[in-house]
Amino acid sequence: MNTEGLLAARMVRLKSSAIRELLKHSKMEGVISLAGGIPSSALFDFEGLAKATQIAITEQPEHAFQYGLTEGSHGLRSRIADLCKDRGIVATAEDIVVTAGSQQALDLVMRAVVDPEDVFVVERPTYLAALQTLELAEAHLLSVGSDGDGMKVDELAEILKTRKIKGVYLVPTFGNPSGVTLSLSRREQLVKLAAEHQFLIVEDDPYGELRFTDERLPTLFEISKTQYGHANNIIYTSTFSKILAPGLRLGWVIMPQWLLNKVAIIKQAADLHASSLSQTVAENYLALGRLDKQIETIRAAYKQKYNVLAELLERELGHVLTFEYPKGGMFLWARFREPRNCTEWMKKTLEQGVVFVPGEFFFSDNPDYSTFRISFATATEEQLHEAVARLKRAL
Amino acid sequence: MNTEGLLAARMVRLKSSAIRELLKHSKMEGVISLAGGIPSSALFDFEGLAKATQIAITEQPEHAFQYGLTEGSHGLRSRIADLCKDRGIVATAEDIVVTAGSQQALDLVMRAVVDPEDVFVVERPTYLAALQTLELAEAHLLSVGSDGDGMKVDELAEILKTRKIKGVYLVPTFGNPSGVTLSLSRREQLVKLAAEHQFLIVEDDPYGELRFTDERLPTLFEISKTQYGHANNIIYTSTFSKILAPGLRLGWVIMPQWLLNKVAIIKQAADLHASSLSQTVAENYLALGRLDKQIETIRAAYKQKYNVLAELLERELGHVLTFEYPKGGMFLWARFREPRNCTEWMKKTLEQGVVFVPGEFFFSDNPDYSTFRISFATATEEQLHEAVARLKRAL
Repeated sequence: MNTEGLLAARMVRLKSSAIRELLKHSKMEGVISLAGGIPSSALFDFEGLAKATQIAITEQPEHAFQYGLTEGSHGLRSRIADLCKDRGIVATAEDIVVTAGSQQALDLVMRAVVDPEDVFVVERPTYLAALQTLELAEAHLLSVGSDGDGMKVDELAEILKTRKIKGVYLVPTFGNPSGVTLSLSRREQLVKLAAEHQFLIVEDDPYGELRFTDERLPTLFEISKTQYGHANNIIYTSTFSKILAPGLRLGWVIMPQWLLNKVAIIKQAADLHASSLSQTVAENYLALGRLDKQIETIRAAYKQKYNVLAELLERELGHVLTFEYPKGGMFLWARFREPRNCTEWMKKTLEQGVVFVPGEFFFSDNPDYSTFRISFATATEEQLHEAVARLKRAL
Repeated sequence: MNTEGLLAARMVRLKSSAIRELLKHSKMEGVISLAGGIPSSALFDFEGLAKATQIAITEQPEHAFQYGLTEGSHGLRSRIADLCKDRGIVATAEDIVVTAGSQQALDLVMRAVVDPEDVFVVERPTYLAALQTLELAEAHLLSVGSDGDGMKVDELAEILKTRKIKGVYLVPTFGNPSGVTLSLSRREQLVKLAAEHQFLIVEDDPYGELRFTDERLPTLFEISKTQYGHANNIIYTSTFSKILAPGLRLGWVIMPQWLLNKVAIIKQAADLHASSLSQTVAENYLALGRLDKQIETIRAAYKQKYNVLAELLERELGHVLTFEYPKGGMFLWARFREPRNCTEWMKKTLEQGVVFVPGEFFFSDNPDYSTFRISFATATEEQLHEAVARLKRAL
């Protein structure tokens, strides 16, 4: 590992330790946590999950408890391919590797494609744990800003005038932490740039199904297929964590064939394959036909929470805060109108009994300390009221 | 990645592809497979597993389906600590990280401790997928031979006269692929060398419980604690795959504190944590108190299969083959008395309808082509009879 690699690794350690330390507070008695990016277990379809598990242990015990294929069971991959059709993604089981959550998809992909010093471009802000996988792979990170229309693709175009890049990582739909969605014109612009400059796009899509409106923008994968007849440089990852149950630790990645074999070989060395029990349960759950209704339930609940939160924030804190208006997902990204260090501020909010994630942790460089991320998925409406009141008292 | 790194990665790819290609044969109609290192699902305690799963979905659904701790659930880690006491290992939940099988333990540990070009010493032959993790971490591999008493520690001592090494990886008990066990005196010698020369020992112990006799040699971990009062340079990994169910994808690693935080941070980036569902099932299974009896069942069955196989091999093929006599585990390692390329030979055995894993794949260097590994765990006694007859016909 070269010096920069060591520095990056140290940064990963520091960030993770700081975050881990901070998040300990969220477990404290009486503290309302708006911090964790975790879905609400009050909304889990425990009845359906129990049914799916029951079938696994009574009818498919060997499938559930014996070793399986590195790429994932063929049955589950076929079901995932079907599920992705609704997302405008034409893929077969053979294009898919089942992973331990989309987190593992990111780690495996970065290990497969990034050589040390390869340039990867991320959004500012971006998903913290994606930064960790990029830093472990010793990527050289560059960042571009984002606004209400998502990543500023024009800034990327500027970079491409002078730099050769390996890839772009982004959460284009209901982003984490920003909550914002990349506009259609920027999507098309990004896919065009990738085709022209031959770089990879890692399209991380954990939240795309959690929309609050009827609007569904095409995935980057879909745009590439439509415009160029292939998606050879698009790597699409998604997960069951936000639509079914994160404890299953099941995600997937759809890749071009040149990459798939490489990822499968690394996965084999990394953990052989994802939990057979989890895979069997997920496959059975999909076969029960309950997922669409479950997603509707989550959408309605998160939308309601978001509406309550946005109204409260505007009314109670609108004089000091601005924020974008997400159209889906689990996060709201707030910024103080006047500069304020939110990591410092959280000491005060903690005294009042409310925590969030300070924004600085989501930046690979040039952190905006005046920002913070609110997750509205787990708190009840009552808790959201109380949380905003506490934030106000901590001003 | 430097040139050597690229070469290593290519080697991983080649080996894996070759093995994957070969193992496809083992799925062919009518072919008896002695290839896969997979436990016999005929011996799985499906009743106990079903009970444990039933408890998870009825009594602990949130625990089973929500996110959990990166290190693994505290309850499971405590149960693992208890289980390890019987192996002479004094550890608490805080010394343990639950992993996706011991395969992931190896990958995480190698990512945490190996910088490119660091020297790691392995046995000749050694576990193929450990080689893969070492090669992905860009370790510089050296190897020492082994015989009926396991790794030739004298050869390691020779290396240490001129080279600084980062660590030694080995399966000291009922090794894969060799089946042999490191003798007590060599264990003591190895631990002493590690203390003197300050290198790490990765003690991979998936098979230790599968003994055919009453003899239990102390683990390297135990020897270090006894002799030096600590095990600060011993990394002990084990798994539920061979004693309970590999489909759960659950293993664990016991480490000194200086390493544990580093491994946990990499695990967080790698997949957040192991399947909550699998962890809940394993914890419940351990609480049911059925594991000891289950291990007895497996021991008795594997011992019987091994005895049948060893007798058949001696009688039918003893004139052309030699082999060591494992005292436990799942593998028998055979060598032709006269040079023979077993990868080539497998084409003939395949025509007769029997496959194994050619020995060459288990060497980091200087492969002995005259060797091959037989897994006796899954075949029935009848199949073992037929398999040996087919091997004989293929001579």
